[in-house]
Amino acid sequence: MRILITGGAGFLGGRLAREILKRGQLAGQSVKELVITDLFAAPADLLADARVKSHAGPLLEQGDLLASGFDGVFHLASAVSGECELDFDLGLRSNLDSTRLLLDSLRRSGKVSRMVFASSIAVFGPYADQPMTPVVSDTTLPSPQTSYGTHKLMLEYLMADHTRKGFIDGRSARLMTVTVRPGKPNGAASSFFSGIIREPLAGADSICPVDASVAHPVSSPATTIASLIALFETSQASLGNRLALNLPGLNVTVQQMLDALEKVAGKAVRQRVHFERDERVAGIVNNWARAATSERALALGLRADTSFESIIEQYIADCRSQPGYPAHALQGL
Amino acid sequence: MRILITGGAGFLGGRLAREILKRGQLAGQSVKELVITDLFAAPADLLADARVKSHAGPLLEQGDLLASGFDGVFHLASAVSGECELDFDLGLRSNLDSTRLLLDSLRRSGKVSRMVFASSIAVFGPYADQPMTPVVSDTTLPSPQTSYGTHKLMLEYLMADHTRKGFIDGRSARLMTVTVRPGKPNGAASSFFSGIIREPLAGADSICPVDASVAHPVSSPATTIASLIALFETSQASLGNRLALNLPGLNVTVQQMLDALEKVAGKAVRQRVHFERDERVAGIVNNWARAATSERALALGLRADTSFESIIEQYIADCRSQPGYPAHALQGL
Repeated sequence: MRILITGGAGFLGGRLAREILKRGQLAGQSVKELVITDLFAAPADLLADARVKSHAGPLLEQGDLLASGFDGVFHLASAVSGECELDFDLGLRSNLDSTRLLLDSLRRSGKVSRMVFASSIAVFGPYADQPMTPVVSDTTLPSPQTSYGTHKLMLEYLMADHTRKGFIDGRSARLMTVTVRPGKPNGAASSFFSGIIREPLAGADSICPVDASVAHPVSSPATTIASLIALFETSQASLGNRLALNLPGLNVTVQQMLDALEKVAGKAVRQRVHFERDERVAGIVNNWARAATSERALALGLRADTSFESIIEQYIADCRSQPGYPAHALQGL
Repeated sequence: MRILITGGAGFLGGRLAREILKRGQLAGQSVKELVITDLFAAPADLLADARVKSHAGPLLEQGDLLASGFDGVFHLASAVSGECELDFDLGLRSNLDSTRLLLDSLRRSGKVSRMVFASSIAVFGPYADQPMTPVVSDTTLPSPQTSYGTHKLMLEYLMADHTRKGFIDGRSARLMTVTVRPGKPNGAASSFFSGIIREPLAGADSICPVDASVAHPVSSPATTIASLIALFETSQASLGNRLALNLPGLNVTVQQMLDALEKVAGKAVRQRVHFERDERVAGIVNNWARAATSERALALGLRADTSFESIIEQYIADCRSQPGYPAHALQGL
């Protein structure tokens, strides 16, 4: 199999690449070549694998590569929510135009690629005449309140139409907020969902821009990657003509996250988190789902994390074993 | 006011132009200039009005015109369902790319245009794991099963995001199937909903490609135009952040349509309709809504036709008074 991961040099994409290389196969077939595209080159540990080819640069400039014929595609490349709110054109280009080029190129390649698209729970939002459903399910009417969520939803439908026509074999995974992410805060409005765990563990203070009562469905990196691979390996028949689904998430409040932090890492670590409301972030988060269900994914055998403690423990273990985690990541412990 | 109608030389667009010119104003403001774009030039009666400017050619080549600053836009230009199923690229270009250019151009013009987008009831369809809802409402989860419906739905969301950002003041009208249309059958799979009335009235035989039990929500041309104008004149506040709505439709079966034809035009006319199933058309229609409700439009004061007899009577009156109806249109009466 020849597999493409867009956004494959990023945190989730790189981790997905590592997991696929470790397994050596997808859906029972051996992975011979793993092509990674991203704005920057893939990390050294991935480049060291003879099966990996890395192409750095905007997806929009990689038409020939994208049309070169893939058995499978994981499409993770995307401008994130905060970026899209600040730069409307960037969002249109990085999300809509790039995915359009990818779909056009896959179609022209003549090979029917199986494709998993990383959509988002940000497709949901409140209507003025109908307050936000507290729990979003697979049948909740989407109503994105960010450009990011709008693009993701539009692309779910565009992918479904390409699949209906037999040009690709697509499926869209609505990712829950992934936490705990390593590294620095990024432009995503959800960045603090990692920051309030990561920074205290590294010995640094962290600002929580929303109230402790804020509730949200989250997923650990390992569980998210396992879900993406499981969705790839699912037969098209088991999805029916309904190709977008909520990935399983753990529904938690900020308070529960901090309680788990204290339980796993101690009181001193938890006390490094301070509340300082940021109206811009709080406004965006206020339009997000407070909890999610994922009946269809569960029926396909996908599973959520079982506790937020286990998510923090996974992060601590990752800091000690995975590439890309800084040396100081646990110096606050 | 300077108003743009895309697809303004077509049947609905031309009729909308005539109605706006007749009223002379929209939302209480005088219409000084009415710009019509379409693949072909506007009809002579429209060109004769000093307020009308007609631009013929693909929308995709009219970027400068589209960016020249409009107070109001009615965006009706579109490739229809049958065409999009036969030519996937045509659909992407005529629907997605053209509307994207229009939105980009309006945004760049710096003027916040009020914009009514002609969406369609074709955004609805069945899910494999959930049979088609017999009655689609404003809160039914869309699931388009044609490229046409997919594009319309994607654009509803893209327009909503442009509106949220304050770039336009948009609203999307999900049109019911418009009948009775004059002229020849077009590429739309819904074309027979006009043909089975129009052809017998002209003295010609007509083939109905679906069963008499097929049910569908329809709207007369005059009612559809009145709804589009009413939606334009509605305040943004009255729509909340939910900008797409079902236009009011009359829910009828093919049988009821033919009964009405017999009542209005006599038995001999009705007997010119013959049933000959076309699997391609029947398959598309089978994925459409059997009936629709439109609570939000009704709350805004929009109204459906009251009977199919009145729709046929409107068509007969139009044949005798409106431009663009052929001389032989009623020679079967």
